[in-house]
Amino acid sequence: MTRLIDADARGVWIITPTPFTDNGDLDLESTDRMVDYYMACGVDGLTILGIMGEANKLTQDESIDFTGRVLQRVDGRIPVVVGVSAPGHRVAGSLTAAVMDLGAGGIMLSPALGLRTEDQVYGYYESFINEIGEDVPIVLQDYPPSSQVYMSVATIDRLIKDFESIVVFKHEDCPGLRKLTRLRADEDAGLRRRVSILTANGALYLLQELRRGADGCMTGFGLPEMLVEACRLFFAGDAEAAEDLYDAYLPLVRHEQQPGFGLAVRKELLCRNGVIACARARAPGPALDAVDRQELEALLARLDRRLAGMGRPVPMAAQ
Amino acid sequence: MTRLIDADARGVWIITPTPFTDNGDLDLESTDRMVDYYMACGVDGLTILGIMGEANKLTQDESIDFTGRVLQRVDGRIPVVVGVSAPGHRVAGSLTAAVMDLGAGGIMLSPALGLRTEDQVYGYYESFINEIGEDVPIVLQDYPPSSQVYMSVATIDRLIKDFESIVVFKHEDCPGLRKLTRLRADEDAGLRRRVSILTANGALYLLQELRRGADGCMTGFGLPEMLVEACRLFFAGDAEAAEDLYDAYLPLVRHEQQPGFGLAVRKELLCRNGVIACARARAPGPALDAVDRQELEALLARLDRRLAGMGRPVPMAAQ
Amino acid sequence: MTRLIDADARGVWIITPTPFTDNGDLDLESTDRMVDYYMACGVDGLTILGIMGEANKLTQDESIDFTGRVLQRVDGRIPVVVGVSAPGHRVAGSLTAAVMDLGAGGIMLSPALGLRTEDQVYGYYESFINEIGEDVPIVLQDYPPSSQVYMSVATIDRLIKDFESIVVFKHEDCPGLRKLTRLRADEDAGLRRRVSILTANGALYLLQELRRGADGCMTGFGLPEMLVEACRLFFAGDAEAAEDLYDAYLPLVRHEQQPGFGLAVRKELLCRNGVIACARARAPGPALDAVDRQELEALLARLDRRLAGMGRPVPMAAQ
Amino acid sequence: MTRLIDADARGVWIITPTPFTDNGDLDLESTDRMVDYYMACGVDGLTILGIMGEANKLTQDESIDFTGRVLQRVDGRIPVVVGVSAPGHRVAGSLTAAVMDLGAGGIMLSPALGLRTEDQVYGYYESFINEIGEDVPIVLQDYPPSSQVYMSVATIDRLIKDFESIVVFKHEDCPGLRKLTRLRADEDAGLRRRVSILTANGALYLLQELRRGADGCMTGFGLPEMLVEACRLFFAGDAEAAEDLYDAYLPLVRHEQQPGFGLAVRKELLCRNGVIACARARAPGPALDAVDRQELEALLARLDRRLAGMGRPVPMAAQ
Repeated sequence: MTRLIDADARGVWIITPTPFTDNGDLDLESTDRMVDYYMACGVDGLTILGIMGEANKLTQDESIDFTGRVLQRVDGRIPVVVGVSAPGHRVAGSLTAAVMDLGAGGIMLSPALGLRTEDQVYGYYESFINEIGEDVPIVLQDYPPSSQVYMSVATIDRLIKDFESIVVFKHEDCPGLRKLTRLRADEDAGLRRRVSILTANGALYLLQELRRGADGCMTGFGLPEMLVEACRLFFAGDAEAAEDLYDAYLPLVRHEQQPGFGLAVRKELLCRNGVIACARARAPGPALDAVDRQELEALLARLDRRLAGMGRPVPMAAQ
Repeated sequence: MTRLIDADARGVWIITPTPFTDNGDLDLESTDRMVDYYMACGVDGLTILGIMGEANKLTQDESIDFTGRVLQRVDGRIPVVVGVSAPGHRVAGSLTAAVMDLGAGGIMLSPALGLRTEDQVYGYYESFINEIGEDVPIVLQDYPPSSQVYMSVATIDRLIKDFESIVVFKHEDCPGLRKLTRLRADEDAGLRRRVSILTANGALYLLQELRRGADGCMTGFGLPEMLVEACRLFFAGDAEAAEDLYDAYLPLVRHEQQPGFGLAVRKELLCRNGVIACARARAPGPALDAVDRQELEALLARLDRRLAGMGRPVPMAAQ
Repeated sequence: MTRLIDADARGVWIITPTPFTDNGDLDLESTDRMVDYYMACGVDGLTILGIMGEANKLTQDESIDFTGRVLQRVDGRIPVVVGVSAPGHRVAGSLTAAVMDLGAGGIMLSPALGLRTEDQVYGYYESFINEIGEDVPIVLQDYPPSSQVYMSVATIDRLIKDFESIVVFKHEDCPGLRKLTRLRADEDAGLRRRVSILTANGALYLLQELRRGADGCMTGFGLPEMLVEACRLFFAGDAEAAEDLYDAYLPLVRHEQQPGFGLAVRKELLCRNGVIACARARAPGPALDAVDRQELEALLARLDRRLAGMGRPVPMAAQ
Repeated sequence: MTRLIDADARGVWIITPTPFTDNGDLDLESTDRMVDYYMACGVDGLTILGIMGEANKLTQDESIDFTGRVLQRVDGRIPVVVGVSAPGHRVAGSLTAAVMDLGAGGIMLSPALGLRTEDQVYGYYESFINEIGEDVPIVLQDYPPSSQVYMSVATIDRLIKDFESIVVFKHEDCPGLRKLTRLRADEDAGLRRRVSILTANGALYLLQELRRGADGCMTGFGLPEMLVEACRLFFAGDAEAAEDLYDAYLPLVRHEQQPGFGLAVRKELLCRNGVIACARARAPGPALDAVDRQELEALLARLDRRLAGMGRPVPMAAQ
């Protein structure tokens, strides 16, 4: 059963890594355990094959195999978004067709490297949507540190207005808090229909973003129970309790947000916990050394003490 | 009396903003109060005319006036480093001569935009030191997000080895924790003499950096008492207490670390507290809007509550 | 007597280098000879303190001294545009005021490094024009390889429409031929008033640009008589003769268009010819080595032979 | 029969486009004609799946199909290099294995986007060669405008010294003439073994590069007979005749060297001539409009006249 994403998407959409074996093959058994783990954490959706999923280090065949396995394990319980960003529409389009056939809930697309002006960004999405059709739900990803493409609020508004299939805006420009406020203001002013705004950047500003109107987050984080609980508390009306919990984890949030390096920390946490069998990223990729591991243990020990002081349970991957 | 910097530099070297009046002139009266404020916070040194000091938006005459006023007010009590980075050696060199004459403790230089290879970076510092002479103490700034120049540990080692006047390495590559560990390891292995390593990035990883061997930080932060006290605790042997204090401020540290935007927050805090008369940056520059101000107040209120819970005093600028 | 530039600017506006003595000081005597030389070549205007003029390696005092000397020597015979691009409006504005007082014909401004979206570009010019007033004629420079800022035709149109003082568009995006055609088409369609479009990129596509509607060029080139004669022939209706002449020089045009390196070639040609006393650029800057000089001589010898075959005179600096 | 490339590679190695049908599929029939055409032009080798081959817009399956078809048609008469650059070693490695099995003569690899220091560049090639083994001949591509990675002569020397399988250096840094001279000087000084240096940048400096010691070029150009004849004349000892011929084509060389746009011109020339059935690039990609086509015709007409004046034949694709 396919669960398509729509403009009501809300809560925690975890960006997953892609598990590999020691020799670098896809590890589909770890993939099953990883899906189970995220479901147990209570996430609202999964997003696979993003930057953190090392999508650009997989062949298309591998991307399809991995997607198939994830969808099979999820079995329609929550929606799954698949990153399809690629330098050309043809490859992105054929991957889109394949994963939607398999039951994906939608696709995520970032503007291609080398787009210069905002007219080009608009034309890029326009021509891609012409290629894949208007019935595939799209997450519009705005992550300039990786894409090297900058979009103004005006361009984002125009894209959302003109293309009904864009249902989620993945917000990760930085600084970007004001951008979020302006996007919500344009909706309130009736300039365009409302979409879901899910924020990222490793959740580094999560509570501020929720207070400014975000519907949740779509990001990676090694201890996702916190994201789930913080969003739950916030949407239940207890923003201060949400922020208290969040702040306890902030040292780790900040540690994982180091560009590139964060992936190694997240895989280490999943591996430490027995969720995935091997923490390696495909080459060239980040890896922890002995000092990094010691530092991570110290951060986790501090987190444990702080959670204990709050009467809060220790998250699974930190045990 | 001039206090020159040397390889024993340690503790907190605050990067200062440059105060302007409402109509954009240098505000030298606010400058006096700002110096007094930082002295009262207990910093070990000042660094003026860095990126946060909007150095590239001043004429050379203004830079010299501002430096003179700061040095006069400091009156030899602590050393003052002056940023002289400029696209050409001639301008950087004439500013260096002027500020050293006025009593600066040393200069800070970042590699110029457009240097591509590490040989070019080496040649850049070599030719600059030839121009200014070998008796001006230098802070070697490694801040790729702004300079767009990347230096390997091997190049940094080579520069320090060959040029005695480089006495401080300002560490702000990110991710950069491993780089810091390797720089210290090269010293321990006797590959080159020891220099002071002061870290930056808005202190976002301060305790991890101190644990990896940093001598302190050279960075901007709106509530510098915390930096001073955290370093004091750490060097007194109580790293956990240092980190407890640090973590209480981390939400604000992280908030200020937003590129560009952080300057507006820091000026706002100084202005709120009566230290400077006007929070404006020169155009084009960041400014807080009403929502930003509300958000900042909420962050400060949370900090107050947390400090109260720890039995810690509220910092001056947060009152 | 001041000759202001306006939207009728046409022909060859040579971008001049800034002459320095062997020890790196401004060389004002060479400056006089350089002005005389360009006048003798028949150029329609001068543009000083652009990238090729190493403007960012001068103090503001030096910029004003140099401008004063150029204007004094030109003595109102042709208009002189002064580049004022700077990271901040205050510095750009004070330089603007100073050079306009001295008799400059207008100023040239490129968007500042770090502007990301086109709204930011628009806001940048808007706030600058608010600062300097609406009566200073502006050359809008669009040179992404240096500014790292990209402007769409829509943004350029909007700027020209909203700000009467923008009278010349300096076209040097690449590839940019279609952009030029679209800018002219928008004028023909009555979308906005007509401005002068002068092209650059070292004149690498000059004849194609003239055929697409450019009014001339504003660029550096070591043998400017060719630019003058090619434009003259073209505007006299003999485009093929213009292109025949241009093609003879194309090997050298292309040689000078190497980023950064071209400045060294141009200064070498001026020096070889006795116009300026010293070919050095300020550090860090390009310089020819022995092999480069030999190569340049060979290119000039080939040019001489080709011009001889065409019955054309050898240009001054190539003799 | 496989013809492996080695350090004696010399002459013209044409970079080929990848032909597509009107609906964007691989066009293997046009591929056959394209191979025949380049063979008829007299090239010494083919390089497929480079940037100009839109390699990053193909799935791996398509890359293998296209490579197989080219190799089948070439049938061992000349060596074929296959570009395998990819963000991850695993994908590059599996493509390498596949194309070497099919009979490729070697592979071309550019450093991945995001490598910052030269140590990282070295480590990148080291780990890749560990992955594919030391018996696959490698073309080391140095094209910073696309890779955003800069390599010093020292790093290139070190790579060539340490890895025997690097047999060709593809030179396309710009400005890069001095780099070429220094690479040859290091060989002459016995610092490392000699490799073949083939230059690119659309042949914009071909004769200067040959004079500085290049062994030929590995580049795209729409009228490759010129490259073949110019190299033949040069290596036969008649550099001036080679340059006379080259200069006649320089207006077109320069026209094609516009980044991105050049591909559209080259495909147009191949299509105009009946070699490929369709000039389209995969989206997002460049395309000529009516004005561009007119301009191209005018450039070709001028070339015809000039060749006629020299008593030279008109190239196939320009007829």
